Amino acid sequence: MRISFSVTPERPSPNGVFRVGLLGHGTVGAAFHELLEERAEAIEASTGQRPELSGVLTRGRGDFDDILERSDLVVELIGGLEPARDYVLRTLAAGKHVVTANKQLLSQHGEELYSAAAEAGVQLRFEAAVGGVVPIIRVIHETLAAAHIQRVHGIVNGTTNFILTEMARTGASYEEALAEAQELGYAEADPSDDVSGRDAAAKMAIIARLAFGTPLQVEEVPHEGIEKVTGEDIERARELGLSLKLVGSAERVDGGVAVRVFPTFLFGAHPLASVNGSFNAVTIESPAITEITLSGPGAGGSQTASAVLGDVISAMIPPPTPPVPARALPIVTDVESAFYLHLEVADRPGVLAQVAEILGLQGVSVRSVVQKGLGEDARLEMVVHRVLESKFLAAVAMIGGLDFLRAEPRVIRVIEEVF
Amino acid sequence: MRISFSVTPERPSPNGVFRVGLLGHGTVGAAFHELLEERAEAIEASTGQRPELSGVLTRGRGDFDDILERSDLVVELIGGLEPARDYVLRTLAAGKHVVTANKQLLSQHGEELYSAAAEAGVQLRFEAAVGGVVPIIRVIHETLAAAHIQRVHGIVNGTTNFILTEMARTGASYEEALAEAQELGYAEADPSDDVSGRDAAAKMAIIARLAFGTPLQVEEVPHEGIEKVTGEDIERARELGLSLKLVGSAERVDGGVAVRVFPTFLFGAHPLASVNGSFNAVTIESPAITEITLSGPGAGGSQTASAVLGDVISAMIPPPTPPVPARALPIVTDVESAFYLHLEVADRPGVLAQVAEILGLQGVSVRSVVQKGLGEDARLEMVVHRVLESKFLAAVAMIGGLDFLRAEPRVIRVIEEVF
Repeated sequence: MRISFSVTPERPSPNGVFRVGLLGHGTVGAAFHELLEERAEAIEASTGQRPELSGVLTRGRGDFDDILERSDLVVELIGGLEPARDYVLRTLAAGKHVVTANKQLLSQHGEELYSAAAEAGVQLRFEAAVGGVVPIIRVIHETLAAAHIQRVHGIVNGTTNFILTEMARTGASYEEALAEAQELGYAEADPSDDVSGRDAAAKMAIIARLAFGTPLQVEEVPHEGIEKVTGEDIERARELGLSLKLVGSAERVDGGVAVRVFPTFLFGAHPLASVNGSFNAVTIESPAITEITLSGPGAGGSQTASAVLGDVISAMIPPPTPPVPARALPIVTDVESAFYLHLEVADRPGVLAQVAEILGLQGVSVRSVVQKGLGEDARLEMVVHRVLESKFLAAVAMIGGLDFLRAEPRVIRVIEEVF
Repeated sequence: MRISFSVTPERPSPNGVFRVGLLGHGTVGAAFHELLEERAEAIEASTGQRPELSGVLTRGRGDFDDILERSDLVVELIGGLEPARDYVLRTLAAGKHVVTANKQLLSQHGEELYSAAAEAGVQLRFEAAVGGVVPIIRVIHETLAAAHIQRVHGIVNGTTNFILTEMARTGASYEEALAEAQELGYAEADPSDDVSGRDAAAKMAIIARLAFGTPLQVEEVPHEGIEKVTGEDIERARELGLSLKLVGSAERVDGGVAVRVFPTFLFGAHPLASVNGSFNAVTIESPAITEITLSGPGAGGSQTASAVLGDVISAMIPPPTPPVPARALPIVTDVESAFYLHLEVADRPGVLAQVAEILGLQGVSVRSVVQKGLGEDARLEMVVHRVLESKFLAAVAMIGGLDFLRAEPRVIRVIEEVF
């Protein structure tokens, strides 16, 4: 991608422009840059201010002080401890908001940063540091501000969840699944931070800090990774109705807190048991709410960039106000859907052919069909791929008129798998 | 419950007090009242203001104008169109925030209320109107402010999801499952608003308004309920790997929007397919984020009250700032957990008895145990209930010293079902 830096020349914020300085232009930085430009107009429509990139700092290019001076908010996507910590502190001290995705920094120097932001009266937002686009931080911090959170369980590392899912799905060994994850880009060349559980421990430290209001550093989170998990563990677990995940847990215990990361079995009915592939999810328990679960894709460039931009917008706007004025869009009533079709038919040759012909004429494509029963009990059960509702219903009306039908056709909409 | 009205005598807001007027004192109102008092201290610690009930309006008691004058924010839990609409409009016109759980009002008079709030520059919050404690509104409005939402699929009615789950689980007919839901308090005596799909349609209208920024009323949402769903539908679906849910969908289609509610089949891998019982869930799809899923218990009194209080706190505080200063809690390392234990043992009598005795001595209670294999391949696989880790590991250490063990015991933590 060619990078075009749209630097604003003036120092003070021009009217109606919200100036965003960007530190770091790797995968996430580049995705954020692109998304910001793509969504600038829509954001202006909803907030009254147009977000504009005021400068980009990369290893070889840009000057931090210059960018800071030109910005209303700084996005820190450099990662690591220094110089990220120094830049964030200087931004906060200058009375400007910070959005960061830096879990390492937050899990080791969180208190220092939180205090600096509180002192300066500016916002420090970090949704992207934990769980990709899954809004864990916002939900704990805002939705559940009233709740006494008792426990958080999380699958907060997409790499290890991908590896464990592959081992369960294909019977691959840990080494094989890791190699596949690396090939597909789900694991780094050096995966030790992920597979050792240390990445998850850093995220759980940040979550526990927020959920329980107690200072906590990653060093205080005991963790065990997935390197020693075997195919037999997973196989045996399946027989017992369990699935194996790398689970971070943070809970209140007798006036204290316990925060840990371990390979853990989940019973099938637990909301985290069905979280597969590189997805992240957390379950938050509290007496008042029972429990809620949030899940979604783990950190990918575009997901993380989307979480960062969500934080930037939240920093731009005053406390959430009513929705923006509506612009009327046409209401569409004839839409595409997949369908299930159940037909009770006479048991004679040519029935399926006639049904298939009518469906074909209306452009309906069959995903699966089962013929069942004999004689008085013969029936067809079909699932068809997404098709315009009017076309499908026209086909069903035609089928409904055929003489071999023993009852009204039964139609139910179907939603196909998302992933 | 005895209601004690803690009315503040002065009209202007006393220093450090945030005055909350409450309209309605039914199930949710009473739960909110209780939760507010229970959490007041913690909220004061985190926001600097103590929320206090300034007055309660019930059918027979209290005066709206008086309550309005005494309040910084009004919580509307009366339900229905009038007088709720009138009270909300008068509160907004007086420059005071409103929190409401009234889906009927929002799905029929949303634009009028949103405009009134925008004009007055105050907040109108309504998380509790959709999906109980599941933070659908906040996530769409804030986390995904940057996303171009393409589609929302939702199970937004707990009553119908409970009925469909029971039909699938027990083979009950619709009528039987409905009767059970009524007995357990999951369905009203007159369930028509739920089972007809109208309740879900109102919620989808509110969601679509927010997700797509287009005005939309419940009357514009085609809906079909679950009254005609048969046990055979569900049985056949299971054979095809499908589960049947009442699904609301809202999607962009060719520059327009389509919003509808239908009984719908979901393929097993879809995130909504495993949402059972009275739970609610939504899946939100957007190109930048792929998709995220939020799930949790549907509207119960305490869940709804928790969502209302979350909204009240959000209205109290300035744009979310860094977490409150930390108070150090002790870090606990020895915690309770369920465990899986795999033992490779000699194939001789008395082995299980010895293992069981050691576990029993340490207070470890066995949930399930399987003996497998013969001779060189004999093994025990156990799952034990929650027990203090130190006790379990002590038992394992003792077991590890027994002479019939052929390999190191294998221990993995287990998380039991949440519901």
